[in-house]
Parts: sequence; structure tokens; C-alpha cells
Amino acid sequence: MIYLDNAASTPVHEKVIEEMLPYFREQYGNPSSIHKHGRLANVAIQNARKRIASLINADSNEILITSGGTESNNTAIYGIASQNKGKHIITSSIEHDAILEPCKHLEKQGYRISFLPVDKHGSTNPEDLKKEISSDTCLITIMYANNEVGTIQPIKEMVQIAKEKNIAFHTDAVQAVGKIPVDVKDLGIDLLSISSHKINGPKGVGALYVKKGVKISPLILGGGQENGFRSGTENVASIVGFGMACELSKNNMDVNTIHLKKLTAKLVSRVLQEIPTTTINGHPDMRTPNNTHFTFLGVNGEDLIIKLDENKISASTGSACSVKIQKASHVLKAMGFSHEQVTGSLRLTVGITNTEQEIDETVDTLKKVVQELRAVSPYKSKYNF
Amino acid sequence: MIYLDNAASTPVHEKVIEEMLPYFREQYGNPSSIHKHGRLANVAIQNARKRIASLINADSNEILITSGGTESNNTAIYGIASQNKGKHIITSSIEHDAILEPCKHLEKQGYRISFLPVDKHGSTNPEDLKKEISSDTCLITIMYANNEVGTIQPIKEMVQIAKEKNIAFHTDAVQAVGKIPVDVKDLGIDLLSISSHKINGPKGVGALYVKKGVKISPLILGGGQENGFRSGTENVASIVGFGMACELSKNNMDVNTIHLKKLTAKLVSRVLQEIPTTTINGHPDMRTPNNTHFTFLGVNGEDLIIKLDENKISASTGSACSVKIQKASHVLKAMGFSHEQVTGSLRLTVGITNTEQEIDETVDTLKKVVQELRAVSPYKSKYNF
Repeated sequence: MIYLDNAASTPVHEKVIEEMLPYFREQYGNPSSIHKHGRLANVAIQNARKRIASLINADSNEILITSGGTESNNTAIYGIASQNKGKHIITSSIEHDAILEPCKHLEKQGYRISFLPVDKHGSTNPEDLKKEISSDTCLITIMYANNEVGTIQPIKEMVQIAKEKNIAFHTDAVQAVGKIPVDVKDLGIDLLSISSHKINGPKGVGALYVKKGVKISPLILGGGQENGFRSGTENVASIVGFGMACELSKNNMDVNTIHLKKLTAKLVSRVLQEIPTTTINGHPDMRTPNNTHFTFLGVNGEDLIIKLDENKISASTGSACSVKIQKASHVLKAMGFSHEQVTGSLRLTVGITNTEQEIDETVDTLKKVVQELRAVSPYKSKYNF
Repeated sequence: MIYLDNAASTPVHEKVIEEMLPYFREQYGNPSSIHKHGRLANVAIQNARKRIASLINADSNEILITSGGTESNNTAIYGIASQNKGKHIITSSIEHDAILEPCKHLEKQGYRISFLPVDKHGSTNPEDLKKEISSDTCLITIMYANNEVGTIQPIKEMVQIAKEKNIAFHTDAVQAVGKIPVDVKDLGIDLLSISSHKINGPKGVGALYVKKGVKISPLILGGGQENGFRSGTENVASIVGFGMACELSKNNMDVNTIHLKKLTAKLVSRVLQEIPTTTINGHPDMRTPNNTHFTFLGVNGEDLIIKLDENKISASTGSACSVKIQKASHVLKAMGFSHEQVTGSLRLTVGITNTEQEIDETVDTLKKVVQELRAVSPYKSKYNF
């Protein structure tokens, strides 16, 4: 089996598993308990929090631990919105549903939401942001890197614009953190979402960076954990694992980036050379090192995935963090893709465990199955396949 | 180390860990992905859902998986409240903070909240519930078993009262499920919260039973997982572990109950016989088999916990799922306890891994440390210690 869907989820690193196991077996205390079992669990969380903070150059008391990227995004949006009833929020048209759906929910409740357009590469334009800002804008939330096409957004420039107007800026950085250096102090950002399972940590845990001084309302209330901003017994083992995944990401980023770039370069160059009538999508330079996103004209992307799956290769049409598989990609539509281009798309995202041999095998298979599908394509005569 | 704080959290069963490990190492797919890695993860969740459902005699499509008991409680309360703006909710004065805090939050937003009183045993009275119901009551939420004193509430009677008036009934059953038989069909209940880490499963996962036909609004929006009622990539390994914990709980309930009752009976009888001026709190019969809760007059409960901790015994003053350790127990106050009784309290909750020998060692130590603390107690002369 070849797994090329690392933007959807990743295998848990063996060192992460090792780090987690004692917190199932021996150190199972509730971190709120004052006895030794509880204190050990509490210390473990604080150490993990430091590791998480360190990956993005935050202070550990700026890290709010959540159940994952989606909860982090919901907490950021509702957390600011509930303090600014009925005001204005700016986001982009290519966000993940974990941003779009809370925004649409607020829209129904009387908030005004602006969705910034993107160009053909999937890039937002800071000039468009400037034009949308009004006196009642309370939040700007723009993703750091797109989950489908990998395009990195001009976040730093946009944060500058927001700061001049004193507007809170949040970024869904789930696809960026651990892949490229992200420094919250350098960005000057207010809120930033991270997910553990995108960086070889366990699922079910994530974090929201909340800059010191930024006020949000909690989404979940109860025992007052996370300084009252996220109640519920802490998910100790997973938090510890997430911490380790962050440390590994930080320490190995340079070598990982070289590896990921080598694999994607090989993948892109072989696919474009060997499979005709094919394009690579997203920004040519400003993109995450693990993402490749192709359009094979005349081919249906879902058929392609099924064919690849039959050949033991796991790939995606785009967003895999959504159950609405049948829905055509809102990202590609926002980039101006035709229906044919949208449906002919394939995302292959590499990870630290992939090898060059796997890439070669994948391209060999891809060549074969694209040819097979094109042989029976309704577009056969159009492209002279 | 002797761990007698199983109501706060429990060690993860070895079979649960075994069941989880493949979902970190090999079956790490995102359940929303359509390739084999994704499908395997999805099947694993559906199997776990059946096991969770089976423990409470629910159908598996009535199980909404969450990040834990607190999120389940928040989802139930906000999920009903948001469809009944500004209406009336009835709860009790001895609920966990994961119920009380969302209710108080709603109260600030204009909802009317009634807090039912309890008697000296910590029992709510169905007659009190009848009196509080009004034409705008939209939700009744009463815990199944109290986390501090173990008292089991007359839930079935109360559900009957709610049903006659067509009012949604929710119970926080975190301390009951897995300890005593809980059958949602027999109860006729609408919503019920469960937590994994209270029944030897991993932390960070739980469920909300939502009876077929009961409408709630989701708390977290995004990719549309859990039929749109709880978005976010599913915490596959933990869900699988939770499923196994439920299956073990169900299959071993009889033998576990005998074991827990034997341990608590020994603990109560030895403590009451050998340590004077001591009472056992909570209901004499209607109580969970794992809970004991004592008041040692003239002793400060926190001092007692620290002394026990020095002797390698982990115990609690009461609620451990709260970071507000210093706050005097609202449960004991509602039961009419004096300040002295409240502060002199100790909760010892046994689990499936505890032994009779551990109980004997604990009582021996308890005798010694209570005596030491009473020797320097400000109440020394009052009780003639």
C-alpha cells in the first residue's frame, strides 16, 4: 500500500506512540487531581504545551489545547464573534469547511461575512482585504496554506493590514505548521489553529494559539480546564503525543523539507513529462512542500482515485476532511476552474514515510490508469487521446 | 502506589490499548477519505459505535461521538437551548460543572434556570421536578449518579414526568454507565452523556446518546462528520478504544460489580468501625458500587489527601474533574452539610484494578493519618479526640 494522502491524515510517529503509552498504562491520573497521579499528568501536559508552543515560537501560556483543528477554528471564530454581536467578519472563498460553516452559521444570525476571492493560483490579494475592511470588522480569518492546492497565502502582509485597523486576525494553519516555518511573533498574529494528526501526531487533539491579551469567549464550559477557556478532562496521552510530534517536526523540519521537496519535484516532473494534457495546480512557488495537485483533462478524479485504490495507492480529489465527497471543490471553483477541470483533479500529498520508489511506482500506475480512463472518456475526441 | 480516585479517571485496560495501537501505526487513514486507508478507519468507527450503543441498549445511529463527557453535556444543553431561545431549563443543584456552567451561561443570556434541591442523601425528588415545570420548560437535565457522593437519582420516574409534558430529558450518566446497568430504551430518555476515561477507556472521547427523532443543533461545525452534528476528523484510535472499553464494561459488569461492592463494603465497614466520629455520606442504598464518601469530623479533607499522598495513596475530596480545587463542594452544601462537614470530607472510589489488600493498607494508613491530624485539630477539645 502506498499512502499519498498525508494532507488528510498521517501515520503516528513511533516516537510519539512510545511517548503516549505510559499515559495509558501508569500515569492515568486526572490532571486536576492534587495527588501524585494527578500531578504527574499535569506536569506532562505542561511539558507538552511547551513543545507545542516552541514549534510556532509562542509562549506556552498562549497555547489553548483543543480536540483538533476544527474545534480550534470554531473556538477562534465564535470566541471573537460572541464578543462582537452582529458585526463583520472577513474570510476567503477557499477556506476549509471548519471555517466556512461557522461563518455561514453566524451569517444566518445576522453577522455580515465577506468572502475574499482568489486568483487562478488560489492566492488571496491583500488589496482585496483592504477594500473589504469596514468600521465594524471584528475578525479576519484567512487560512495559512490551502488544503487542496497547497497555496500559501500572504498572511504576514494581511496581518499588517489588520493591525493598522486593530482587527483580530486568525489563521487556520493546519496545513502549514510542521511543513514550513511558522513564527507567531514574527507574524504578529492574534489566533492560529494547529492540528496534531497532520504532523504525525494522534488524531483528536489540536491547539489554538491565542496571543497574550487577546480576549475570546470559551466554546465549551465546565470544570474550568485550560484557564477556563476549554473545559473537559485533558486528553493527557494525546496531548503528550502531540507535544512529541511538534518537537519532532521542529527538530526535523529542514531534513523533512528536503525529503518532501525531492519527492514532490520527482512526482511533478515525471507526471507532467509522461502524462499529456495534464496541469499542476496551485501557486508555482508559494506552496507547501508536501502538496501536488494535478488536473488530468478528460478524466474523472473520483474514477481515478478508485483505480489508484485498486492498485493499492491512496490518493484524494482534494479536501478529505469532509464527508461531502460528492460536492465539487469550492476551492477549484473559486480559482476559476471549469467543471471539467474541477472534476479531473487529483491531490497527491507526500509525507515523511514516503520513498522515491513509491513515487516512481505511483507515476507508473498513474500513467496506466489515466490512459485507461481516457480511452473510454467522453472527451476522447476533443483531446484526440 | 494505591489509586483510589477511579471516579476522576481510570487506568486504560490493556485490551483497550491493544485495540487502539493499529490505528496509530497502520490504519491511520482519515475516515472521510474514500480510499482503503479511509474506509478501514471508517469501518473501525462504525464497529466502535455499535459497541458503545450496545452498552446502553441504544441503536448505533443514536450515538454521537464527542471529545468527552463535558462536550457531550455542552452539546445536549446548547443543542436543545438554541432551538428554544430564552425558555426554561430545569437542572439540579448537585450537577457537575459541565452542566452547571453552560446553564449559568444561558441564564446570563436570558434563559430561566431552575436548580432542584436535594435531601441529606443527595437525592432529588420527582415531586420537586413536577412543581418546577412550566409551559416554557424546554429541557430537564439531571445527573444519573453524583460524582462526589455516588447517589443515584430517580431518573426513570423523572423521565416519565418529562414525557407527559413533552419536555426533552437529558442525563449526565458519566458516573453511572459501566458501573450499573443503564438502558436508554427502558428509561425512555432523550439524551444521555457518557465518558470513555471513566470506564477504563482513553481520555478525550465520549458520546452523547440522542434518541431517534430528537432534534439538537451542533456545537462544532465544519466537515460534517457525525451526520453534521459534530464536525472534525474522527479520533479513530480513541473511538476504537472507547468501543472496546464499552464492550469490556458490558461483558464484565456482573463480575466487576461484585468486585467493586466487596471492596467498598470492606472499606466502609472497617473505616466506620475503626475510625471514630466518622460518617459515610450519600444514599445508603441508591449509590454507585465504586463510591465511598466519608466525613472525618475535625479533619481538613485536603490535609488528609496530602497525608495520604505522602503515603502513596491517591484520594480526592470530591469532584476531581475541576481545577477549582479550593472551592468548597457545592454538592455537600446542597445536601445541608455544615462547613466543618464539608471540609472534613474524603472520597475514595475503587476500580477494577484495586485489590482487597490495597483496601486494608488504605484503612491502616487512614487510621494513622486521621489520628495525627486530629491530634493537632482546632476541634480537638470539641470532640475530645
